[in-house]
Amino acid sequence: MTINKDTNILIIGLGLMGGSYAQALSKQGYKVRAITFEQKDIDYALERGMILEGSATPDEKLIAQADLIVFALYPAAFVKWIITYQHLFKSGALITDVTGVKTLVVNNVQGRLRSDVEYVPAHPMAGRERSGVEYSDDSVFKGANYIVTPTEKNTPEAIEACKHLGEILGFSRISVLSPEEHDDMIAFLSQLTHCIAVTLMTTNDKEGLEKYTGDSFRDLTRISKINDVMWSELFLMNKEALLRQMDAFSAEFSRFREYVANGQREEMRAVMRKAGERRTKFDKK
Amino acid sequence: MTINKDTNILIIGLGLMGGSYAQALSKQGYKVRAITFEQKDIDYALERGMILEGSATPDEKLIAQADLIVFALYPAAFVKWIITYQHLFKSGALITDVTGVKTLVVNNVQGRLRSDVEYVPAHPMAGRERSGVEYSDDSVFKGANYIVTPTEKNTPEAIEACKHLGEILGFSRISVLSPEEHDDMIAFLSQLTHCIAVTLMTTNDKEGLEKYTGDSFRDLTRISKINDVMWSELFLMNKEALLRQMDAFSAEFSRFREYVANGQREEMRAVMRKAGERRTKFDKK
Repeated sequence: MTINKDTNILIIGLGLMGGSYAQALSKQGYKVRAITFEQKDIDYALERGMILEGSATPDEKLIAQADLIVFALYPAAFVKWIITYQHLFKSGALITDVTGVKTLVVNNVQGRLRSDVEYVPAHPMAGRERSGVEYSDDSVFKGANYIVTPTEKNTPEAIEACKHLGEILGFSRISVLSPEEHDDMIAFLSQLTHCIAVTLMTTNDKEGLEKYTGDSFRDLTRISKINDVMWSELFLMNKEALLRQMDAFSAEFSRFREYVANGQREEMRAVMRKAGERRTKFDKK
Repeated sequence: MTINKDTNILIIGLGLMGGSYAQALSKQGYKVRAITFEQKDIDYALERGMILEGSATPDEKLIAQADLIVFALYPAAFVKWIITYQHLFKSGALITDVTGVKTLVVNNVQGRLRSDVEYVPAHPMAGRERSGVEYSDDSVFKGANYIVTPTEKNTPEAIEACKHLGEILGFSRISVLSPEEHDDMIAFLSQLTHCIAVTLMTTNDKEGLEKYTGDSFRDLTRISKINDVMWSELFLMNKEALLRQMDAFSAEFSRFREYVANGQREEMRAVMRKAGERRTKFDKK
């Protein structure tokens, strides 16, 4: 399939991400409808022209007419929804998602999906420290990465259509990784960093520390304001990869601790210089 | 003593911090002179009106006329300088500094200083990821903390003068802590965060990760571009307090790792919620 202005697009789940998808697509004249859990979120999106119509129940007509369905639900809810309602999908429909972990979700969904419907997994690496459709903001896609994680079950045409969706949404870089490569990468770059931020924030309960805080502590803990329901689910769905990265970090941190304890100044300096050099590669271009 | 427009102020060490002090003070019409290691830095400061005069050697006249001397050197160099040149100080001079660790430095300096000269320790909690007088910028003091860490050897008048200096420089908050309280605080808020940033940056050497980096990894590693000479010295000069904080963080991180490994979702969520609540106290006002 090709995504164009006649494509019937259905978004399942109007939260921050689903809402931002709706915003970006509707602005450009694409036909967007939505199903979500609460009528107030549908009303919000209708009032702002983010969707043409929507429903707070799994409306059969909306589902049956959709050519492209984007799931913007938490991982377990996504899998459950597919199993429960896939009999309503139009034959030939394309399914994609926004889920932040892939291997387990992809195996579950592709292993159970009707053979006349195709699911191309994707992860838009964008977001804010907020939840809810009222924080929707399609500007978060600018400068961000959109990663498609197909398997051997996917067709080249559907993969292309999914990449095209990322372009329409305004992502700056569209990449393709296997689900396993994606999960290793995300375990390090995103999940490990959130584990560190959260545990740094709970390491020291001393009163009044905020009076002396500089920017470095604020930087390292900004992301500790975390959606606990979603992130605990993401961590557990990517447990093996996350534990590997946590252990690698702990080993590196312990090595550095020994350098400090032993007064190994040159070894400390070598790690610092390596860190600084490597960080340069990660600077925003 | 009282700091006023007639006070002869001498800055020893024209790097980023010494230069920013000179800038802030000269702008307001204070009399600032400087001694540093390289003539080019003196020339730079003279050309920009940051100092009235300066020398790249320990000029006896400059030292002997100074009422207030600010040391902006690395900790070990500061202690050594005092021991070598204190015979040149004017009787009744006030000494202060910018050193980021206190207990060891304060004990060393106060234990050896002439009895007719007073040293009030201070730590301006401001800076940039750069070194050198050419990056001087007195706007970094705005919104930042200035901490005075006196001991029982200090007089109330000298402590007040040192706090006044922080106000003149434009710091937003002036606090008083003991050197030990300061070092515990700094070990957690600053040194531990730098250890984490550096070791996170060296944990994973996989090629191409920068292509997928989002803001969270960038936030946690921004401060890993570190001056290795200065920071290795600061870490070792505050070793005991730093090791305590590193061990506290490791214990908290390991506990969270066990929650992940055991699938203890509710325990993970409780830590996340605690982190988010506590982080709110650290938001910039």
